[in-house]
Amino acid sequence: MRLVITGGAGFLGTRLARKLLERGTLVDAAGNARSLRRLVLLDVVAATVIDPRVTAIAGDLADPAVIERVVTADTDSVFHLAAVVSGHAEAEFDTGMRVNLDATRALLERCRKLDRPPKFVFTSSLAVFGGQLPDPVLDDAPLTPQTSYGAQKAIGELLVYDMTRKGYIDGRSLRLPTVTVRPGKPNKAASSFASGIIREPLSGIDAVCPVAPETQLWVTSPRRVIDNLIVGHDVAPAKFCQTRSVNVPGLRVSVEEMVSALRRVAGDAVAARVKWQIDPVIDKIVRTWPANFAPRLGPALGMNGDSDFGTIIDDYMQEMAT
Amino acid sequence: MRLVITGGAGFLGTRLARKLLERGTLVDAAGNARSLRRLVLLDVVAATVIDPRVTAIAGDLADPAVIERVVTADTDSVFHLAAVVSGHAEAEFDTGMRVNLDATRALLERCRKLDRPPKFVFTSSLAVFGGQLPDPVLDDAPLTPQTSYGAQKAIGELLVYDMTRKGYIDGRSLRLPTVTVRPGKPNKAASSFASGIIREPLSGIDAVCPVAPETQLWVTSPRRVIDNLIVGHDVAPAKFCQTRSVNVPGLRVSVEEMVSALRRVAGDAVAARVKWQIDPVIDKIVRTWPANFAPRLGPALGMNGDSDFGTIIDDYMQEMAT
Repeated sequence: MRLVITGGAGFLGTRLARKLLERGTLVDAAGNARSLRRLVLLDVVAATVIDPRVTAIAGDLADPAVIERVVTADTDSVFHLAAVVSGHAEAEFDTGMRVNLDATRALLERCRKLDRPPKFVFTSSLAVFGGQLPDPVLDDAPLTPQTSYGAQKAIGELLVYDMTRKGYIDGRSLRLPTVTVRPGKPNKAASSFASGIIREPLSGIDAVCPVAPETQLWVTSPRRVIDNLIVGHDVAPAKFCQTRSVNVPGLRVSVEEMVSALRRVAGDAVAARVKWQIDPVIDKIVRTWPANFAPRLGPALGMNGDSDFGTIIDDYMQEMAT
Repeated sequence: MRLVITGGAGFLGTRLARKLLERGTLVDAAGNARSLRRLVLLDVVAATVIDPRVTAIAGDLADPAVIERVVTADTDSVFHLAAVVSGHAEAEFDTGMRVNLDATRALLERCRKLDRPPKFVFTSSLAVFGGQLPDPVLDDAPLTPQTSYGAQKAIGELLVYDMTRKGYIDGRSLRLPTVTVRPGKPNKAASSFASGIIREPLSGIDAVCPVAPETQLWVTSPRRVIDNLIVGHDVAPAKFCQTRSVNVPGLRVSVEEMVSALRRVAGDAVAARVKWQIDPVIDKIVRTWPANFAPRLGPALGMNGDSDFGTIIDDYMQEMAT
């Protein structure tokens, strides 16, 4: 198997790469387990995963020449993780369109030109949903995104499904919950605080929570979401229904419950480092996202959500300690 | 008011132009009735509507220079009717993407650059729905297009809504039923037969019906759909909910009922000119389209469907006779 991961130097891309290298096998388009021979990691900066099977390429995904170089005639699968995140795409409409729509389409067009239709795992988002929705949100809920990021992801899903229907690719669009706890620095995602309010206090730093305590989120741990991405890649096409989109399982939790879990795990002093101060721009975006999902297809495919938020924090602390 | 109609030399574009010129007033973005001062008709061939207010421009909508020329700083409204039709977009994927997606986006981008956000009426289609659907199809049914045409229209709706939400345009996406009876020659729409099986027999010519008699369609007369397009333009933004998409009212009818109506109106000999011969390509596309809608928003906005198919045929015959 020859694989490409876009966004391959990012947090999820790096973890996915490590997990794939560790597993060593994946299911190909014909349904056979095959060993991983080459893993191309594309990102704006060079990926740092060290392994003889890895090729790191630094380049702009929106540049067709870069795509030509990265996706080659023998590419079996693409994990398309690269994206301009929600808050960034809302603040800079053109930047979001260029990367989330144009680059995604260029990548799909390149895949379509290959001799064998490759598997194509597209990381969509719960942000394809928005506004008034059935509660809970079922797998076939209407797509009514209320952010440009969500609209761009919804368009990506339509392209992935149509090109799959035409036989150009074997696509799968996985709508990810908010991933927490992400290590490192805050980013421009409107959901960045969902990691920050855990990560910063654990590092002895105050964190501002820009939404109200009762705000509900649909979250996943990094570990679960990586496992679910691989399930989404490996699963047989016949398991899907009339689209290729999957609401990836997650955990419904309020921000208040997240901080309570932090208190239980790390104590009062740590939890007290979370300061509450509504940011209207972030609050407005987050409010459009549903938090109560009833996924059926994802679990049927073999995907799992996290059981509780305390365990997510424990996992994060253990990883940081090693 | 300065208006643009893309596809302005086509069947609907010409009828819309005539109706707008006859009315002479439209509601502008501020909610005021204003007189029609200029009507630009863009199409691949020059429109032939004669009126001092009309400017006909022949050009390719996918050419940015043409869009620059057609949409000018003082444009108040755009009716975007131009499209590669369903059967054509399914047979030629790239052609469909270029016109239905790229040109639509270029047109929206041009509108976004104007000083005042223009009204933008996008003709979407029932083809944004497909496959297994709730019966009847409600206004907020999920978009699961099973044709490239439907996918491209669904993407257009997402762009129209997102740009409206951002304040770049004042968009409205009207999902049209199958329009029948269209005069003239068959086109590459998979639904072309829905006009052909009435039009050809009335002209003394045999017509092949490529789908089974029990096939259900969701149809509209040209007269109704033109009225509904103008309602969709004039209606106040506050009347919409969380998207700008409307299931335009239509009439549910089986192909068998259409031919029975033809028999009642024009006699056995005329109806006998319909020959039945399934075309698998057309049949497959048409089968993906729902025919049973329960529109609520459209009627609430002031849109109407036809009452019965016999009247649609009567109207067509009267028009042809004048």
